[in-house]
Amino acid sequence: MIIVMSPEATEVNIKKVQDKIVSVGLKCHLSQGASRMIIGVIGDKKIISGLQMKAFDGVEKTVAITEKYKLVSREFKHEDTIVNIDGVLVGGGHLGIMAGPCAVESMEQLQESAQAVKAAGAQFLRGGAFKPRTSPYDFQGFAEKGLQMLKTVGEKTGLKIVTEIVDVNAIDMHCAYADVLQVGARNMQNFELLKVVGKSKKPVLLKRGMSATISEWLNAAEYILSEGNYNVILCERGIRTYETFTRNTLDLSAVAAVKELSHLPIIVDPSHGTGRWQMVRPMARAAIAAGADGLMIEVHPHPEVALSDGDQSLTPENFDVVMKEVSQIAAMMGKK
Amino acid sequence: MIIVMSPEATEVNIKKVQDKIVSVGLKCHLSQGASRMIIGVIGDKKIISGLQMKAFDGVEKTVAITEKYKLVSREFKHEDTIVNIDGVLVGGGHLGIMAGPCAVESMEQLQESAQAVKAAGAQFLRGGAFKPRTSPYDFQGFAEKGLQMLKTVGEKTGLKIVTEIVDVNAIDMHCAYADVLQVGARNMQNFELLKVVGKSKKPVLLKRGMSATISEWLNAAEYILSEGNYNVILCERGIRTYETFTRNTLDLSAVAAVKELSHLPIIVDPSHGTGRWQMVRPMARAAIAAGADGLMIEVHPHPEVALSDGDQSLTPENFDVVMKEVSQIAAMMGKK
Amino acid sequence: MIIVMSPEATEVNIKKVQDKIVSVGLKCHLSQGASRMIIGVIGDKKIISGLQMKAFDGVEKTVAITEKYKLVSREFKHEDTIVNIDGVLVGGGHLGIMAGPCAVESMEQLQESAQAVKAAGAQFLRGGAFKPRTSPYDFQGFAEKGLQMLKTVGEKTGLKIVTEIVDVNAIDMHCAYADVLQVGARNMQNFELLKVVGKSKKPVLLKRGMSATISEWLNAAEYILSEGNYNVILCERGIRTYETFTRNTLDLSAVAAVKELSHLPIIVDPSHGTGRWQMVRPMARAAIAAGADGLMIEVHPHPEVALSDGDQSLTPENFDVVMKEVSQIAAMMGKK
Amino acid sequence: MIIVMSPEATEVNIKKVQDKIVSVGLKCHLSQGASRMIIGVIGDKKIISGLQMKAFDGVEKTVAITEKYKLVSREFKHEDTIVNIDGVLVGGGHLGIMAGPCAVESMEQLQESAQAVKAAGAQFLRGGAFKPRTSPYDFQGFAEKGLQMLKTVGEKTGLKIVTEIVDVNAIDMHCAYADVLQVGARNMQNFELLKVVGKSKKPVLLKRGMSATISEWLNAAEYILSEGNYNVILCERGIRTYETFTRNTLDLSAVAAVKELSHLPIIVDPSHGTGRWQMVRPMARAAIAAGADGLMIEVHPHPEVALSDGDQSLTPENFDVVMKEVSQIAAMMGKK
Repeated sequence: MIIVMSPEATEVNIKKVQDKIVSVGLKCHLSQGASRMIIGVIGDKKIISGLQMKAFDGVEKTVAITEKYKLVSREFKHEDTIVNIDGVLVGGGHLGIMAGPCAVESMEQLQESAQAVKAAGAQFLRGGAFKPRTSPYDFQGFAEKGLQMLKTVGEKTGLKIVTEIVDVNAIDMHCAYADVLQVGARNMQNFELLKVVGKSKKPVLLKRGMSATISEWLNAAEYILSEGNYNVILCERGIRTYETFTRNTLDLSAVAAVKELSHLPIIVDPSHGTGRWQMVRPMARAAIAAGADGLMIEVHPHPEVALSDGDQSLTPENFDVVMKEVSQIAAMMGKK
Repeated sequence: MIIVMSPEATEVNIKKVQDKIVSVGLKCHLSQGASRMIIGVIGDKKIISGLQMKAFDGVEKTVAITEKYKLVSREFKHEDTIVNIDGVLVGGGHLGIMAGPCAVESMEQLQESAQAVKAAGAQFLRGGAFKPRTSPYDFQGFAEKGLQMLKTVGEKTGLKIVTEIVDVNAIDMHCAYADVLQVGARNMQNFELLKVVGKSKKPVLLKRGMSATISEWLNAAEYILSEGNYNVILCERGIRTYETFTRNTLDLSAVAAVKELSHLPIIVDPSHGTGRWQMVRPMARAAIAAGADGLMIEVHPHPEVALSDGDQSLTPENFDVVMKEVSQIAAMMGKK
Repeated sequence: MIIVMSPEATEVNIKKVQDKIVSVGLKCHLSQGASRMIIGVIGDKKIISGLQMKAFDGVEKTVAITEKYKLVSREFKHEDTIVNIDGVLVGGGHLGIMAGPCAVESMEQLQESAQAVKAAGAQFLRGGAFKPRTSPYDFQGFAEKGLQMLKTVGEKTGLKIVTEIVDVNAIDMHCAYADVLQVGARNMQNFELLKVVGKSKKPVLLKRGMSATISEWLNAAEYILSEGNYNVILCERGIRTYETFTRNTLDLSAVAAVKELSHLPIIVDPSHGTGRWQMVRPMARAAIAAGADGLMIEVHPHPEVALSDGDQSLTPENFDVVMKEVSQIAAMMGKK
Repeated sequence: MIIVMSPEATEVNIKKVQDKIVSVGLKCHLSQGASRMIIGVIGDKKIISGLQMKAFDGVEKTVAITEKYKLVSREFKHEDTIVNIDGVLVGGGHLGIMAGPCAVESMEQLQESAQAVKAAGAQFLRGGAFKPRTSPYDFQGFAEKGLQMLKTVGEKTGLKIVTEIVDVNAIDMHCAYADVLQVGARNMQNFELLKVVGKSKKPVLLKRGMSATISEWLNAAEYILSEGNYNVILCERGIRTYETFTRNTLDLSAVAAVKELSHLPIIVDPSHGTGRWQMVRPMARAAIAAGADGLMIEVHPHPEVALSDGDQSLTPENFDVVMKEVSQIAAMMGKK
């Protein structure tokens, strides 16, 4: 940490800051600038991160030098992590394609979706049984019944099941039915939930929060890894900006940022990222070209009767087109 | 809902949209504009909100006319709600002042804080025992031991206790120790938690999410009211913007917006809203002048040794100054 | 400037960075942290700001210690600047109230507005003759004819005239008719325009850009002062965020921030800041309570026939109510 | 336009709204919803856009149905516009690659840059002679001398010259030296400048404003087309969000949005869009995969001595790698 003292800071102010730093077992290093004293704080970053230096008189600002996360960082582990979901690999050159309806609605809808996405080349079936919805009056999902349908269809088709968990008490239930536990954007900083999925050994898909910085997102992943679960896949799904033409603003530079900062695989969800099915195709191509390790795409056999997210779901025909284009780019990138 | 058809929409496209609307028991009303057909959808808003009309060919966009929330709306209940916390009123002309340290750190710190904020005129003691922190390595709070200290100090001083709940399984524990259950910004759309505090009969302080729209915030409150708990106080605490000088951007227009849209009381947290203790004083005055029903302010006897949020905590002396100024403005506004 | 080297940086990398710093006449100061070398750069800040250190191998990030602006800073001039507009003072305890229609529409409209705002206590008449509009098909203002009307009405009523300049070539014309030159939000970084108003000696009202940081805004003001014109009043008018209920998000913490960083007076425009006339009243109160040196408010005798911004204009009756409340708060703050 | 009346609106309120609409020559169409009267306004969109209906009592909100721009819209012209810059085509399957240093610094730097970018396949040389800088103390460019150097190097290499214009009075000078006039992000709503470049017949590169919506951006382009200049290329260069890891957030979904809404070509600037040279390569690939009609990339022979934007400039070697990858994706997309 760097502490910048204000130009009016007195020697007493500086002395008190130094004393505090030394008193918690850290070292400090003074550097007199043109108008301000700069104090470098050296030592264990967990102790440094607990300092409240802006509360001291004469302190103008403080600047963090290192991130708080450790296990997720590229510095800690240099090689790409490859998550192994029962034989299906994601990361390090292996693309993972997750597709299916927003919500599980019926056995027929699910089977039709599953066959379509498998035929087009997906390895995972996505589908929500517990839906976190903005309004209490919106469709909330079929709960355990939905999970059962997912498992049945997954076994029949050989697709791995990805589904969202919203309740810490439902962890055993989800582990029994699903192959990948999805933590949604709204729950990215629901730390109780992160700890619970961290204690399980199931692979976790961690979506980026609606307005999470990349740093906060990686810290959220650190909660999971620090509980012992290293099988985490990150998922960029659009961030909230002032633009209203799209539902969110898909931040594809997050792919490059995560690749630089972390060893974890990262996939992209262009369906939520744009909220418009017409944009899924170009954004899916762009995601792979940016270096993403996979995609999560909403596919519904009949989007116009979907109980949620019909506006952003692809038909099986359109999904097939996307997959063909994506494969070409992936090949060019030396993937899969 | 208004459906705007694209200029290229065919009669068949329009017919399919009409058929869908009629098939779910709604009515539609066509209006031919200069270049586009506009279709008004009339009927039960729960059914309307389930429609996925953008998935239909020829639909350019859809526009929602009414909000999904009902119980929290000014339309549903015209008079201001006054929340009664064991005799202390908040809303409808009654100011509620909640102050205290970010986190419970020790019995001494808590007692010193409590005496100071009570002396200055606060009716509530705030303090966190379970802290949701960005990094797993930051101080996470004293858990139940912290709640016990809060209760002890609350009983001694007569201050009501406000503290954050982060875990659905801790609801009984929190109900035993606290007078107001705080749902934090990160959990504003943790719907499982909203349902649990909704089922309890404790007053709830619902903070606005970091990038929640006012509409999403009121829908989150609707989750609580729809479970039968009408004792909800909203709390504006700053939203995330591009500006980095402040920790968040305190959105005081949210006070006026909530007063227009809802009957629920709304207070303001200028400590988190700005992240700088120097700004708490002017922003506290502004909040009351904007019409807020109260304040939540971080006060710490010794901010420079605080385990969290020392940067934005007031000393007791500074808090006293704030309270004096706030009282004058409140009097002018005909409050308290 | 602080340069943070990456943990993998070699001695050669560090040496090259040092050489560069020394070669431009600056000094450097090395500090070995737990995992990273930190290099402090000391010397003339104009030279420092020209360094492109992130382009060097082994550099992880750079952190600026001081702002680039100088003349506008509180560090440079400690006492509040009071801008004197032909005898009317703004800043340092003197409130400036600017009110009137968005656009000049007719002599009658302008006179009616002027009488109303003067009667309620405003010292300035605002009104646009050159309107920067999002679409080329929107009403663009009456140009010089509008300026003439403003001058005539200003002389009749004794109100000072504030009007927006959008064209560098119109500087002489504006100086002939107006008392204060307004630079609008869209032109905050139109540096040619800033230089031109800086070369004139007229007082300038500089609105904050739609997504300008406080630092960028003060740097824009620096352009004006560095040309020799010290009569600058800043105006917060709302920033762009994701919230759509209001037209912009009025950032009242900017008032406190500017007071800390600069000696220049700052006023607030709650009309553009919210875009809803119903919110002007509470936000005007809040602005003054936050410490603003004045207000800019849209007032129209008949908002429903206004050629622009009718949605956010107050009637004379409502403006009168606002002024009464604002006076009370100003008195409490020891102003005017 | 759709006008939504509040549930409390009286018949008199509704009558006044109807009278206003009819009085300006428009038609209205009433539709009684479950709780609100909805009024559709039909007629000439220029008249509709001048209405100030929210100023009427009883009006809850208004919703625009159509955009204000016309000439730039896909509805007005269905086929892709191909801009012809003296024989070099951009748009409709023709990729335009613009590369070179941020600022012109010397004849040597410019020649070295030009040879490198030409060798790698660019058709345009970019370089700033007039630099709009946040601080008045930053390097402002070599002015006309810079333009002369650009012209000389352009003629020698056969590269077309793209350079930024910041001053309306410099239009003739720019037209004499440059092949494409760039309007920068800060000037996107400098309407005087838009009109001036619109009156010239030079091709224009219009960058998206820092926080411009896609609609505002297309309206800015409309200013240029409405003056008679149809040779406009749009350029996405990142928008301002809360994320600080990148300089801006590159919004690649804007490419797909513009393709849907407009016939104009759109290119992408990943250098400004990310602010980190390491990210230019993946984002350039992603931009082309998203369907962009070209790229603008900062290339400097020695980024570490650049006078500006060294942090985001590629070396010639890295630019060559980018061009090879981009060509492969372009081929796959059937371009160039």
